[in-house]
Amino acid sequence: MKNIKLTVAYDGTNYHGFQEQRGTGLATIQEVLESTLSKIAKAPIQVIGAGRTDAGVHAWGQVINFRSHCWPVPTSKIHLAMNALLPDDIKVMKAEEVPLDFHARFSATAKTYRYSIYNHRVMSPLHRLYCYHEPRLLDVRAMQEGAAYLVGTHDFKSFQAQGTPVKDTVRTIYRADILSEPPLIHLYLRGNGFLYNMVRIITGTLLDIGMGKIPPSEMSHIIAARDRTRAGTTVPPQGLCLMEVEY
Amino acid sequence: MKNIKLTVAYDGTNYHGFQEQRGTGLATIQEVLESTLSKIAKAPIQVIGAGRTDAGVHAWGQVINFRSHCWPVPTSKIHLAMNALLPDDIKVMKAEEVPLDFHARFSATAKTYRYSIYNHRVMSPLHRLYCYHEPRLLDVRAMQEGAAYLVGTHDFKSFQAQGTPVKDTVRTIYRADILSEPPLIHLYLRGNGFLYNMVRIITGTLLDIGMGKIPPSEMSHIIAARDRTRAGTTVPPQGLCLMEVEY
Repeated sequence: MKNIKLTVAYDGTNYHGFQEQRGTGLATIQEVLESTLSKIAKAPIQVIGAGRTDAGVHAWGQVINFRSHCWPVPTSKIHLAMNALLPDDIKVMKAEEVPLDFHARFSATAKTYRYSIYNHRVMSPLHRLYCYHEPRLLDVRAMQEGAAYLVGTHDFKSFQAQGTPVKDTVRTIYRADILSEPPLIHLYLRGNGFLYNMVRIITGTLLDIGMGKIPPSEMSHIIAARDRTRAGTTVPPQGLCLMEVEY
Repeated sequence: MKNIKLTVAYDGTNYHGFQEQRGTGLATIQEVLESTLSKIAKAPIQVIGAGRTDAGVHAWGQVINFRSHCWPVPTSKIHLAMNALLPDDIKVMKAEEVPLDFHARFSATAKTYRYSIYNHRVMSPLHRLYCYHEPRLLDVRAMQEGAAYLVGTHDFKSFQAQGTPVKDTVRTIYRADILSEPPLIHLYLRGNGFLYNMVRIITGTLLDIGMGKIPPSEMSHIIAARDRTRAGTTVPPQGLCLMEVEY
């Protein structure tokens, strides 16, 4: 029995998210990976993904693993075998054999997400698939000040999509940096886990700060409120990218 | 009578190039711009483009102009009126009124093109639409040395697609820089004009240098030969972007 860990990058534009959703008729990243692996193994293979990215969300460093009794390809050649069969918008960047108890989701100790904003009066056609467009000039300094309140262990219930069944909404954010590369603004969030839509709701809240609708210090009150209606809107998926999963 | 200059950015992925090609049934950038302008003017408008980019080639700073007797929109609002009607992959970045004798193609004094190479064993799904993939490690220093021979006034016949009717193949290259941002390598060429496929054939030749197939000094012999068969292959369109047109 082998347990193989794959680091996968994908353009989520044309997929209905990572996770298989039986019956929707829409392609998912997981389906494409499983059908490609099953072709190579000549046996059904199921994968476990570290992060269940939503429809339209991208990944640079998604991690998956799969276990197989009959896996026929040496680990050093897996990326070649997979990439020859995968479509252009999903690629295996790295393959490693890992101990049998490695689980892409449960073994993860930290994840890093990036949300990218194109801050210019006209949206660039060359960035439209990978950024959210905000035409009003944003105050990056204020956004950085607001983001600093996120670092630490907090109950992030205010930043969880309503109706989500998850009860324990305490997470630790290790890093909340805003990098300005005009006209691009990138938010990097590294944490031990993320609630459903958490990065997109945090970004929506930071946009309110960047536009001067609320002061940076309001972030601490929004966190304390544990109330989704206090935070900003859920920004669209195409600006979001799962950058790295750590173990 | 007004003469309006527009700076236009587009993602060429889904178009059959800039120039209208009657009868092909494929959309061109020019067709989309003309139909949008004609809708606004409520009269047929024809545009002149500075560079006739090929199918799949992108633009960051393409320039067009059009003349109209009945143009109804103030120049400061043209980008808003146009961008509301244009698809996401074509946008007007800037609009200016110019003297009646301004001609986007004939008045141009210099153009800058960029060709982008993704130099990594696996192609990134997030860069695939805007870069050419070269998996073998390239010697950037050697490519820079080879590119230096291009600067100046030369007969670039070796770098013109065969069968092109253009007779005067002398052009001046002002700048031929190779910028390394691993795993990306960008070639910037600024010149007073470019022959058909010239940037893509120059890039193919520089790739031969980067892979050690030919020494950098061979570039001067290839220029001197005035023979297309001496230069490298024509690399694919998606790495090419028309960055700027100067007047």
